[in-house]
Amino acid sequence: MKYKMDRPPMGWNSYDYYDTTVNESQVKANADFMAAHMKDAGWEYIVADIQWYAKRAGSMRERYQYIPFGDVEMDEYGRLLPDVERFPSSAGGKGFGPLAAYVHSLGLKFGIHIMRGIPRIAAHRHLPVQGTGRTADEIADPSSICGWNPDMYGIRKGVPEAQAYYDSILSLYAGWGVDFIKCDDICNTNLYPGNPYSAAHEVEMLQRAIQKTGREIVLSLSPGPALIEKAWHYQRYANMWRITDDFWDDWDLLRNMFDRCELWQAHVAAGAFPDCDMLPVGKLGRGFGRERETNLTREEQRTMLTLWCVFGSPLMIGAELTKLDGWTLSLLTKKDVLKLADCHYTGRQHEKNDEYAVWSCANERTGEHFLALFNFLEEERAVSCDLREVGQFAGSAKTKAAELWTGDIIYPESGTLTDMVPPHGTRLYQLY
Amino acid sequence: MKYKMDRPPMGWNSYDYYDTTVNESQVKANADFMAAHMKDAGWEYIVADIQWYAKRAGSMRERYQYIPFGDVEMDEYGRLLPDVERFPSSAGGKGFGPLAAYVHSLGLKFGIHIMRGIPRIAAHRHLPVQGTGRTADEIADPSSICGWNPDMYGIRKGVPEAQAYYDSILSLYAGWGVDFIKCDDICNTNLYPGNPYSAAHEVEMLQRAIQKTGREIVLSLSPGPALIEKAWHYQRYANMWRITDDFWDDWDLLRNMFDRCELWQAHVAAGAFPDCDMLPVGKLGRGFGRERETNLTREEQRTMLTLWCVFGSPLMIGAELTKLDGWTLSLLTKKDVLKLADCHYTGRQHEKNDEYAVWSCANERTGEHFLALFNFLEEERAVSCDLREVGQFAGSAKTKAAELWTGDIIYPESGTLTDMVPPHGTRLYQLY
Amino acid sequence: MKYKMDRPPMGWNSYDYYDTTVNESQVKANADFMAAHMKDAGWEYIVADIQWYAKRAGSMRERYQYIPFGDVEMDEYGRLLPDVERFPSSAGGKGFGPLAAYVHSLGLKFGIHIMRGIPRIAAHRHLPVQGTGRTADEIADPSSICGWNPDMYGIRKGVPEAQAYYDSILSLYAGWGVDFIKCDDICNTNLYPGNPYSAAHEVEMLQRAIQKTGREIVLSLSPGPALIEKAWHYQRYANMWRITDDFWDDWDLLRNMFDRCELWQAHVAAGAFPDCDMLPVGKLGRGFGRERETNLTREEQRTMLTLWCVFGSPLMIGAELTKLDGWTLSLLTKKDVLKLADCHYTGRQHEKNDEYAVWSCANERTGEHFLALFNFLEEERAVSCDLREVGQFAGSAKTKAAELWTGDIIYPESGTLTDMVPPHGTRLYQLY
Amino acid sequence: MKYKMDRPPMGWNSYDYYDTTVNESQVKANADFMAAHMKDAGWEYIVADIQWYAKRAGSMRERYQYIPFGDVEMDEYGRLLPDVERFPSSAGGKGFGPLAAYVHSLGLKFGIHIMRGIPRIAAHRHLPVQGTGRTADEIADPSSICGWNPDMYGIRKGVPEAQAYYDSILSLYAGWGVDFIKCDDICNTNLYPGNPYSAAHEVEMLQRAIQKTGREIVLSLSPGPALIEKAWHYQRYANMWRITDDFWDDWDLLRNMFDRCELWQAHVAAGAFPDCDMLPVGKLGRGFGRERETNLTREEQRTMLTLWCVFGSPLMIGAELTKLDGWTLSLLTKKDVLKLADCHYTGRQHEKNDEYAVWSCANERTGEHFLALFNFLEEERAVSCDLREVGQFAGSAKTKAAELWTGDIIYPESGTLTDMVPPHGTRLYQLY
Repeated sequence: MKYKMDRPPMGWNSYDYYDTTVNESQVKANADFMAAHMKDAGWEYIVADIQWYAKRAGSMRERYQYIPFGDVEMDEYGRLLPDVERFPSSAGGKGFGPLAAYVHSLGLKFGIHIMRGIPRIAAHRHLPVQGTGRTADEIADPSSICGWNPDMYGIRKGVPEAQAYYDSILSLYAGWGVDFIKCDDICNTNLYPGNPYSAAHEVEMLQRAIQKTGREIVLSLSPGPALIEKAWHYQRYANMWRITDDFWDDWDLLRNMFDRCELWQAHVAAGAFPDCDMLPVGKLGRGFGRERETNLTREEQRTMLTLWCVFGSPLMIGAELTKLDGWTLSLLTKKDVLKLADCHYTGRQHEKNDEYAVWSCANERTGEHFLALFNFLEEERAVSCDLREVGQFAGSAKTKAAELWTGDIIYPESGTLTDMVPPHGTRLYQLY
Repeated sequence: MKYKMDRPPMGWNSYDYYDTTVNESQVKANADFMAAHMKDAGWEYIVADIQWYAKRAGSMRERYQYIPFGDVEMDEYGRLLPDVERFPSSAGGKGFGPLAAYVHSLGLKFGIHIMRGIPRIAAHRHLPVQGTGRTADEIADPSSICGWNPDMYGIRKGVPEAQAYYDSILSLYAGWGVDFIKCDDICNTNLYPGNPYSAAHEVEMLQRAIQKTGREIVLSLSPGPALIEKAWHYQRYANMWRITDDFWDDWDLLRNMFDRCELWQAHVAAGAFPDCDMLPVGKLGRGFGRERETNLTREEQRTMLTLWCVFGSPLMIGAELTKLDGWTLSLLTKKDVLKLADCHYTGRQHEKNDEYAVWSCANERTGEHFLALFNFLEEERAVSCDLREVGQFAGSAKTKAAELWTGDIIYPESGTLTDMVPPHGTRLYQLY
Repeated sequence: MKYKMDRPPMGWNSYDYYDTTVNESQVKANADFMAAHMKDAGWEYIVADIQWYAKRAGSMRERYQYIPFGDVEMDEYGRLLPDVERFPSSAGGKGFGPLAAYVHSLGLKFGIHIMRGIPRIAAHRHLPVQGTGRTADEIADPSSICGWNPDMYGIRKGVPEAQAYYDSILSLYAGWGVDFIKCDDICNTNLYPGNPYSAAHEVEMLQRAIQKTGREIVLSLSPGPALIEKAWHYQRYANMWRITDDFWDDWDLLRNMFDRCELWQAHVAAGAFPDCDMLPVGKLGRGFGRERETNLTREEQRTMLTLWCVFGSPLMIGAELTKLDGWTLSLLTKKDVLKLADCHYTGRQHEKNDEYAVWSCANERTGEHFLALFNFLEEERAVSCDLREVGQFAGSAKTKAAELWTGDIIYPESGTLTDMVPPHGTRLYQLY
Repeated sequence: MKYKMDRPPMGWNSYDYYDTTVNESQVKANADFMAAHMKDAGWEYIVADIQWYAKRAGSMRERYQYIPFGDVEMDEYGRLLPDVERFPSSAGGKGFGPLAAYVHSLGLKFGIHIMRGIPRIAAHRHLPVQGTGRTADEIADPSSICGWNPDMYGIRKGVPEAQAYYDSILSLYAGWGVDFIKCDDICNTNLYPGNPYSAAHEVEMLQRAIQKTGREIVLSLSPGPALIEKAWHYQRYANMWRITDDFWDDWDLLRNMFDRCELWQAHVAAGAFPDCDMLPVGKLGRGFGRERETNLTREEQRTMLTLWCVFGSPLMIGAELTKLDGWTLSLLTKKDVLKLADCHYTGRQHEKNDEYAVWSCANERTGEHFLALFNFLEEERAVSCDLREVGQFAGSAKTKAAELWTGDIIYPESGTLTDMVPPHGTRLYQLY
């Protein structure tokens, strides 16, 4: 059975800051920081994102994000290896083993990004598929490509040796100690609008390959938007799947996430977490050629973290951790809020209109009840909620509300909680 | 707050047998039968379906299902009343009051079908809206019509007196003792493919009008397919909503229902039941001019009832009850199976492929566990399930399986249950 | 056979200035002006646009363009008549007869706008269809409405008496002396996106009814965009059909017309003219509650008139003619340009890119050759054309170009014509 | 300026019989036959279709039509060459030069098929682009592929050296003496439904490259359906373009061609011919592993040829010519019919309904008039046409009709021609 954790993965991902350029010392520095300052708040995954195998990645950034037909590190079975120049400890065929060991030594877990499929060049070179008498050209599907990255061909459906290829890479990665796989161009294969979940069979192959390793490896699917009609399949075979296209530090995208969370709220479960994407806080964008501070206001950042937690999304930080300021670090280590990111804390949208939203959250086991107010407007406004109308609270009279971000205490009158909510901001209460 | 029952409504609906033609004595006869033979199995609603207000309904059946611009029974406020010719007890302005009272006297509940909106002729005649200074032409939307029924105009959005019209009809219906409203052309307004939930505001108005009556009236939305992207809205404002277009006694439609149940399985909750539509068993179709026995085989009927129950759909019988044969009556009164139609029995698809499907069902409160196997093929086949892989059973070893339809006992080996399943058939087990 | 004129209709239409409100004296004043100042440039049609039959039309303009369920002038056969209050000469059942006679007396022709179908109220009242034993409810299609005007129901397909209704109104209109019918909600029935030419059978009925009158009545279809896949049908049954949605005095709409003219250029023929819609010059918008001078610059107006003429569109003026200034009147009476609006002057796009377009135009009978340059940019730019590459000029060496708007003479060098073109402007040459 | 022939190309194409497998002696044998028996009826092009460059083409036919990642003959600049094994005369770098010379020696013309773009393997190997300092990986677009053939990458838009690649292959092909290029995956790039004319820039590059050669090379675009909204672009840059997907010997496809011909009839002009695809007559399908006689009846074959000619389509024979029977040969050499395939014989659909179609055809220069009747039913039926209603005949009274296939003479009564038309058959008359 797939890995069934109660809490969605929490960690750091290199993409928002480094794009394709992250290297070993940068990964280590972020892991060091997390271990020292964030681990006890629940943060644990360190994930190296896209193109760690690509040589000179990022060197033609003004023309391409991904250099077409560029050189990659690859073994004789068409399995990608870390670029030795950026990841020196991988020299001598050790892959990410040494780096994973370092991360593990800090009490953290290690993850990597992959593109679905097999390197195009492996297919054109007819490289052997490990453990089979077949070659890459026999399992690669020449008409299945990624629309935005030139590295891979998809794997054919219905060819027995196709599973062997995924087994061969998972065996390699598990041997390195990988704990987390973020697979891209698979959740929504958007080049194929008539069939945007065209690689569903590759999701199944990946999950089977993971289970064969015997290791608890998280399977994360990207990019979104995931297809709500395929919810069962994502939930059956993956641990997390992206519910929007790339999320960045932009209010319109954050506002839109409320619509996506409404859509996916019934699909959070043990081992299954619809994914709102990385948290673009702190310093961002250096690999993209424009390092910057996040464009989200502090209120918007609280709104984001509140929504992600009440909804139950995975939490992956996009910032360069070593450059976090004190306020952001305190935001990211607010344990009272972070604990809601757990499948036993069920979040439900209670109301949403053009001006505001209200979510409730309940833990059936502990009997805890929470309420979140969100203000979509650019000015402060009062938001009210008749707590007797909230389905999750049915039958319990609420007389006190403790706001978790500020510590304010409010006493609802006649069952109705009313409070002022900042522009684009939130108020999150535990109710008694 | 809307009516929040634990169990989906169970009852009888006149449409599948009578089309637009049902009359008072027929409704009574079906109620009598239900009270006598089916009530203790949980059946309780008696619903008069479409065009009970239309004069000479069904008299031009070879040309029209619904006579265009035909005559209707209507009061001075544009509120439709029962056709006195077919419902004699409604004479003298008593509406469905006497008939509802009769049904109540049997220990059952009474429901009616309505089309969303206001009669077209009321708008063209500028009839007053009760309790307002406005007239029907001011609240009717001339560009909002039903694509398949000519009776009504939709109600405008954003006009204060529009709510008053819905209040006026619900007040009338509640006064009659109506317990169930099936509103049509509202769940999917399919004339408007660019906006198929174009009457969402009318759903809200209906629910508000119901709550103003103080009566526990079920709100059922038709026709399907409901839009999965609007799941939250249906669940917030309605008690049941159709997840397919009209369902009839046809294997292809039944097979398709598995896809729809996969899609909607996470949306069953107290007071909220995705609706698989009527059960077309027994005698059907007289009002359509072709009375017939259901085309579903006995195995298909068991498959249907098992799926509806494990999934948690409302159960509305389409047959003329007084003509039920013994086998069908026993099917419909199988309490061990019917009890699964309850929001505390959570059904989940475990597997589905081109050949078979497997659902599990669990009651967290009682600890009961169930498993359903379904065979999509036209020949008998063995279906296996590794019970250790079933999410809902995690942690509990299963050693015995009691098949609910047949009473057979099976002892799973090494945690795997294997059984032969009839063509298009089912096997439903309680597990121990 | 349908009316086959060589030149597209040229005239005045009341809509752009009067919306639904035009009255008899206003129509006459525009006819007087046209007869006095524009007739010898080819202008001849005077068209009363939408809702001349509606009482109090325009009186609720802040809420509705078309008053829903409003009162209309109608005869006993459900045929709409002019609103006597606005058209006093129609009193006593004379309809538009006297007004048409007045227009004819000026040497001009008279046209009216109609909505496809039969008045809704005629169907609800079961009025007789003239010359048949049927009533309106039998030929009206209750599910065929206009999405933006509440007056009519479409006519059923395949009902013999349906033709009789169209015959009855055309007989009435021909009797009045009507020369031009602009039928709306028929070229693109946009409420039905799955079938936007859903009233094709009504186009056929209209053309048949016209031919039965024996009168040369132009059939103009609205609104656009017409469907290019239906080009043959429009061309077979109508004289002109709108190739865009409503055109107004806006550069973006004018720029877009180049794309539409590219698309439809091969479909100009005798009696068949794709229609670029009215010319929004001069004074506009009074009926809409905001009288204004056109927002098009003088250069844009020349661009518009040049394109309409080279392409071969009908020319219908939207301005209140009595308020035309001298410059606009001279623009509209530029005979050298207007003569290109003729099916024997074949226009063809030679080039189009993001910055400019080039059209050629040739008359095979006379051997005349023309070239039009259009500048899409907001600054003046040079546009060149290698005249030897222009298909329509094949084989003839061009040595002189006379610009028609300015009278400038240019001598192309080495077969290439180059000239400066004003922002959003045009240069139109006759070549020798 | 592009090649502007009056008559659409007529010839033979290897695909329908040989699929990917045709070889030199087979091409020669067909050329020999054409020269001996068909040339004086106007047939002149001999075209080698897809994958003449692929080694072992067709050897894995049970699994693939096109072997993925298979070996190809290619020069140092990534330009494909004939497979020497199948085309021995190409040895020593002579390409198709010797074969073209042979075809020319028979008084015929020689054509080849190409896929748009550059070989994938050239891009992965970074081969130089002739005459530039660039390599294939810099001009190949890794996200532009063909959905059904694995050989090529599309060429990037907006890269100056991209034109150089097309120039380099056209220079090579013109040097061989190629007279006709059928370029595939370019008329409708159906992998990209959001932009099915995504390679429009490659069409322009091809036409520019052709003009640089100074040779009159026909540019034919495949596959269809072409996009009617892009008609101007096809007509500007190509000589022929496919208006349907592959056409085969099937009545439903033939019936559908009437709809496509209706759509495209206004776009036939000198040098511009919408293409109805090959004529699947005689022996077909050997390369596909199922050699067969055409499934079209004789009447259907006449219908096909009549429609293609009256419409003005190119005529390319799919049969193995050396196996033609006498009847088929006589069909294909019916000069009286073939002469209508000429841009000066303008064909126009006069009527089309579910049962039959009528086309007229006129030559303005000669004054000749033709009429074609087509029967869509499976039984013989009479079809009538009021010749006075036919636009192209306006003004001329017709008193005699000579049927071209049979020689029958008919005398229309009162201007109406009526005749019996065979099932799925045609009658084609010259009118006097």
